[in-house]
Amino acid sequence: MSEYDAVVVGAGVIGLSTAYHIKCKHPSSRILVVDKFKSAGQGSTAKSMSAFRCLFSSKVNYLLSDSSVDFYFYVQSQLSVDLKLAFVGYLWLLSSGEYEEMRPILNGLAASNLKHEEYEAEELAKRLGLNVHLAGDEEAEIIGLKDVYKGVFIPKAGIIDADCVTKFYEEEFLKLGGEIRYGVKVEDFLVEPCKPLGLPGEPFFWQESRVSGVKANSGIIKAEKTILAAGAWIPQLLDSVGIECFIKPKKRQVFAIEAKKPALKRLLFTEGFNSVECIPFTILPRPRVLVRPFPTEGVFWLSYADDFPRAFKLEDEPQPEKNFYEYGIYQVLVKYFPQFRDCHPYSAFAGLYEINTLDGHPVIFEEKDLIVVGGASGSGIMKADAIGRIAAALYDGEEYAVLYGDRKFKVSDLSIKERRVEREKLQI
Amino acid sequence: MSEYDAVVVGAGVIGLSTAYHIKCKHPSSRILVVDKFKSAGQGSTAKSMSAFRCLFSSKVNYLLSDSSVDFYFYVQSQLSVDLKLAFVGYLWLLSSGEYEEMRPILNGLAASNLKHEEYEAEELAKRLGLNVHLAGDEEAEIIGLKDVYKGVFIPKAGIIDADCVTKFYEEEFLKLGGEIRYGVKVEDFLVEPCKPLGLPGEPFFWQESRVSGVKANSGIIKAEKTILAAGAWIPQLLDSVGIECFIKPKKRQVFAIEAKKPALKRLLFTEGFNSVECIPFTILPRPRVLVRPFPTEGVFWLSYADDFPRAFKLEDEPQPEKNFYEYGIYQVLVKYFPQFRDCHPYSAFAGLYEINTLDGHPVIFEEKDLIVVGGASGSGIMKADAIGRIAAALYDGEEYAVLYGDRKFKVSDLSIKERRVEREKLQI
Repeated sequence: MSEYDAVVVGAGVIGLSTAYHIKCKHPSSRILVVDKFKSAGQGSTAKSMSAFRCLFSSKVNYLLSDSSVDFYFYVQSQLSVDLKLAFVGYLWLLSSGEYEEMRPILNGLAASNLKHEEYEAEELAKRLGLNVHLAGDEEAEIIGLKDVYKGVFIPKAGIIDADCVTKFYEEEFLKLGGEIRYGVKVEDFLVEPCKPLGLPGEPFFWQESRVSGVKANSGIIKAEKTILAAGAWIPQLLDSVGIECFIKPKKRQVFAIEAKKPALKRLLFTEGFNSVECIPFTILPRPRVLVRPFPTEGVFWLSYADDFPRAFKLEDEPQPEKNFYEYGIYQVLVKYFPQFRDCHPYSAFAGLYEINTLDGHPVIFEEKDLIVVGGASGSGIMKADAIGRIAAALYDGEEYAVLYGDRKFKVSDLSIKERRVEREKLQI
Repeated sequence: MSEYDAVVVGAGVIGLSTAYHIKCKHPSSRILVVDKFKSAGQGSTAKSMSAFRCLFSSKVNYLLSDSSVDFYFYVQSQLSVDLKLAFVGYLWLLSSGEYEEMRPILNGLAASNLKHEEYEAEELAKRLGLNVHLAGDEEAEIIGLKDVYKGVFIPKAGIIDADCVTKFYEEEFLKLGGEIRYGVKVEDFLVEPCKPLGLPGEPFFWQESRVSGVKANSGIIKAEKTILAAGAWIPQLLDSVGIECFIKPKKRQVFAIEAKKPALKRLLFTEGFNSVECIPFTILPRPRVLVRPFPTEGVFWLSYADDFPRAFKLEDEPQPEKNFYEYGIYQVLVKYFPQFRDCHPYSAFAGLYEINTLDGHPVIFEEKDLIVVGGASGSGIMKADAIGRIAAALYDGEEYAVLYGDRKFKVSDLSIKERRVEREKLQI
């Protein structure tokens, strides 16, 4: 039973960012990261769409994302660590109703310096071979699809490699002397009295007690602070000690389509939106099917974040569902982008979102010497740096965290007890 | 596959109160209640402390409880249905710190007509054989027990028989022509598209869909509205369709001690507090061990609602833990009431609280034709009538429910989306 200053549960992008930022501030502290997988980022991090945007309706989400993206860009451009970050932009295709909903959000963000451009439907039709008029198409009407009225293009958005980001934090953490043990599965927390009496059966309910480490398949690991950054597995572990975190796991699926046909290849490498000369990450009108370009692989990734009646369910190996593509995504996609007709996925994968059901923001709080860092709700990679810095500030008992770019953030704003965030309206 | 106007899942006190109040307003509607047990109120209802108080810090909780208690008293006194309701009162024993916390709450409730009386520690010592001075007692100091500074007595509070209340609603519901099927275990919801296309695999994610009944061990039961009132089992069922309710199950234990010894018998039948001439329901200083008199049986019921690290855990047959009494409750109890020295429980039982982790109030909301009624957080029996009336108003799409005593209540105040309640500070 070795004693650490901190043990971090979870070597996903959030856990490693947190471990790295703590270790930066405490080079001589013993910080251990444990993960049940055999290497970093093999849980939901690996199953991500690996894209980023700073377009959120909530100022907090905007700040978390914007400062993290600035940091990643700094890492890639100044530290010459290739994160495969590319500002391909996000293109939101909006029906007229959605455009009206989006306008006030865009106007609000313009004040925060987020730039955007608007496109008329006809121009997008020409540039992308996009079908913008669906009125009269019986199938589209049954599905409930609306005409594209406008497109909103966000240049500060794009794609990144989740694995490269994770590896960056892992390597930097190790360089600083941090320790990582893979293949260590945490089964429960170790709970001990703050003032042990040496009696069997402690802690009794009249004793103050605390989380003093974890019980893992490899044995007990004791620590001054235990940091839970296990993504979708957080609520299950917290339930075992009766702490609420307002996080629920939900499956998300990604389907990969090769851009083999000339028409699809032309679509993937559409010019004029970005310096990569590829189609932006594109969001169709409701239901918001997502099209992520993967230009280096000559591939599209397609996804859709379904709500009711998709279960909140923790699965160790969530599987993509063929019919989710065939009867779901494909039916919507092909109406707007006829280039996809008869295209079927050559591969697919599924991961788990760790959805914060209160307001769609991360939760970062401490209770009983246990620090919980999670609930990124499907935008963990694009916010991981900021989340790690805030968790590190909480670890130090600081009131404010300083995010990349010298932006101050009040740590308690993402806590449970003094939470202060507006509900996010742009979850996709 | 028969079609009902409403199917209510759960024949506990909340489910039956809801079914009864809906049926009252819709005598010709087909309302079915199903429950996995063989008779009414066999889940957590049967495991309750069966006590009531109107003392809550939140005005909403006060109103729910106060109006329900008024209704139960009306049923017993005017309809001559014996609910074994007795106003034995609640006696809160408070340390000086707790008294300071309680004072503003009592002052606020005085405005709502809730009467209370204060007792000096010395008088309680005399009347109850209560040990009010623990300073200097080494064990008490280790446990962290404080001197009793004052007692606050609430006359409009007491004991009731959960089974009698449940049976009352069951009988009235049946008299009105309501249907109940016992031994029917709901395993999942039936989800169907609002506008079926007749395609296999429906509903697809681009279709609007709704809960159209339940899948039970006995087969499918279809209904216009499905009402989920399954207590601690609510979150598990809702998880299967990805709806958040902010309810977590937690085990609660009750230990029964016979008042055999003369000193204990004297304590149980303490005179001067109420017309029953028994000790009030008594709450010790923190940790708040609860002492419920059961004068007709010559018994005390003892309990304690432990928090961290007690798990949020759903168990079909939660068991009481011997050591929870021996090393927990007993150690605290005997310091204040030495009459309990060497007393051990002759029986014990455990049930599940359905804790609302947002604010300690019930949740009553509708989503996709599914009405959720739960989260009473350990005070379901004393609020069941009001909760049933509010759920019935929601069923009718009314903005306000009328509680017993002609008190109006805004239905959306207990919803998830437009929730408007202050966090409850007096959960015990």
